[in-house]
Amino acid sequence: MSDPVWVGVDIGGTKILAGSVDPHGGVGGTVQRPAGPRDGSVEELESTIVEAALAAAAGAPLVGVGLAAAGFVDAAGERVRFAPHLPWREDDVRRRLAARLQVPVGLANDATCALEAEVAHGAARGRDSALLVTVGTGIGGALMVGGRVVRGSGGMAGEFGHMRFVPGGHPCQCGLQGCWEQYASGGALVREIRRATGTAGSDTLTGPGITDAALAGDPAALNAFGVVGRALGLGLAGLVAAFDPDCIVVGGGVSAAGELLLAPARGALVEGLVGAAWRTVPDVLVAACGPEAGMIGAVVQARRQCG
Amino acid sequence: MSDPVWVGVDIGGTKILAGSVDPHGGVGGTVQRPAGPRDGSVEELESTIVEAALAAAAGAPLVGVGLAAAGFVDAAGERVRFAPHLPWREDDVRRRLAARLQVPVGLANDATCALEAEVAHGAARGRDSALLVTVGTGIGGALMVGGRVVRGSGGMAGEFGHMRFVPGGHPCQCGLQGCWEQYASGGALVREIRRATGTAGSDTLTGPGITDAALAGDPAALNAFGVVGRALGLGLAGLVAAFDPDCIVVGGGVSAAGELLLAPARGALVEGLVGAAWRTVPDVLVAACGPEAGMIGAVVQARRQCG
Repeated sequence: MSDPVWVGVDIGGTKILAGSVDPHGGVGGTVQRPAGPRDGSVEELESTIVEAALAAAAGAPLVGVGLAAAGFVDAAGERVRFAPHLPWREDDVRRRLAARLQVPVGLANDATCALEAEVAHGAARGRDSALLVTVGTGIGGALMVGGRVVRGSGGMAGEFGHMRFVPGGHPCQCGLQGCWEQYASGGALVREIRRATGTAGSDTLTGPGITDAALAGDPAALNAFGVVGRALGLGLAGLVAAFDPDCIVVGGGVSAAGELLLAPARGALVEGLVGAAWRTVPDVLVAACGPEAGMIGAVVQARRQCG
Repeated sequence: MSDPVWVGVDIGGTKILAGSVDPHGGVGGTVQRPAGPRDGSVEELESTIVEAALAAAAGAPLVGVGLAAAGFVDAAGERVRFAPHLPWREDDVRRRLAARLQVPVGLANDATCALEAEVAHGAARGRDSALLVTVGTGIGGALMVGGRVVRGSGGMAGEFGHMRFVPGGHPCQCGLQGCWEQYASGGALVREIRRATGTAGSDTLTGPGITDAALAGDPAALNAFGVVGRALGLGLAGLVAAFDPDCIVVGGGVSAAGELLLAPARGALVEGLVGAAWRTVPDVLVAACGPEAGMIGAVVQARRQCG
């Protein structure tokens, strides 16, 4: 019989990724399932999560399960209050899944979990404080102070992507205007390429495609990374003024572009940061746990929540 | 012989305020001294602090002294790294003053101390997390999470006033452009009145004068509070998205205007806050410890630092 395992489940807007995670952050086999439509049923979503968690355990007995949810999780780690791409609304997710799985279950926001993973096993290891910014279609975030990830009074800390970056700027899906994620995300890369090349009709333009083009030396793609990287750094300057963290970890799909994104971001961070000349400007690092960060961190935090 | 006392000393850009502070945050007699010029000598500044601390003790034996400094204090509470309006530059202030006063001395940034006071004895008592924003000539700030004020990795957390509010906006003394304090401070009130009334030459316009005029029903002054209060609330919306605090405490000279400032700020906070409809919007409260907050909090934090 196999050794008992902890399983992490990262429930994103489009897909569910589950895998067993060992105490050193190592990931065993993973399974992926579609998250189903936003207007799908809660019952169906939760059944998929249960099935994925058991499949990831691959016959080994489950010790516990950590859930990372792309949505607003309350500060106690019990309920998903709202999830823009999932059917959960004020749902008692932790208790319900613990009852179905018959093991301890922990629940946290996915960016919170990604930062837990980077603190325990990744780029923020050994740091006293850190900011995580996940740059994907939008911007997610989390903040760690004194070794603990800050949840916020209602569990909603870290919504850096919806801080106002440009007054009266681009409309955002959240209903506001000029949000930072409209200027410093994968979506902003696509917009910047379209603006520069006039290819308004191209539906095939994607973040990864733009990264490939930039790596191949395409001038429009390189320029787009310059513009978006600068916007990233200018926004980070405000967050550093507010928190003064030891380091900044940049994760999410767009971070795969590495220095294409981070070099202009570091320049703009120094340029936009109050008193940059007489302070230590925090290191800007690429996340180390990759696309499995949410799953790994879900287990890190579930072991604590359930222990 | 009198009971032994703790004395707090608030060292601002223009004046030094010292007073004895009891364990309940009660303030005995206070003394005030000019802070001296920015290009004055460190020796002279520190002699004034020593003299003020002893005068505030009024013959009672000193137990210890808390210093609140308008400048960047390192995370350990040892050095003042830089102070825009004072001669300290990387100065070992805590140790030097402890040697001269021959009692334990604690040192922290003045906004940090003001929040310590509000948490221990004021508007943020009993809260798990809080943001403090001091609205005076500029904007200072501090953040408390889990009952502890966050110092930041280099002691520089809370510089909310120099987060970018308007790209390419008004130049700021800090060297950047469009800083929040250019739009949501006493300075912004004065600018707004001048803009509205065309009285560019009036040097007699002051924050307190504008508050009096608004309280007397002056339309230009009322409008200025509306504009500046809105800018305050919009900036707070970004900070709430990032931290999700339990409450926001507004202190500083301009907060004396109370609802004239806070009513428009609360409206703009809800308007500019991501997901305001499905979250608890934090309370926006007037600071309770008044102009003595820095002095009181200096003692709160010094008792901890020296205990």
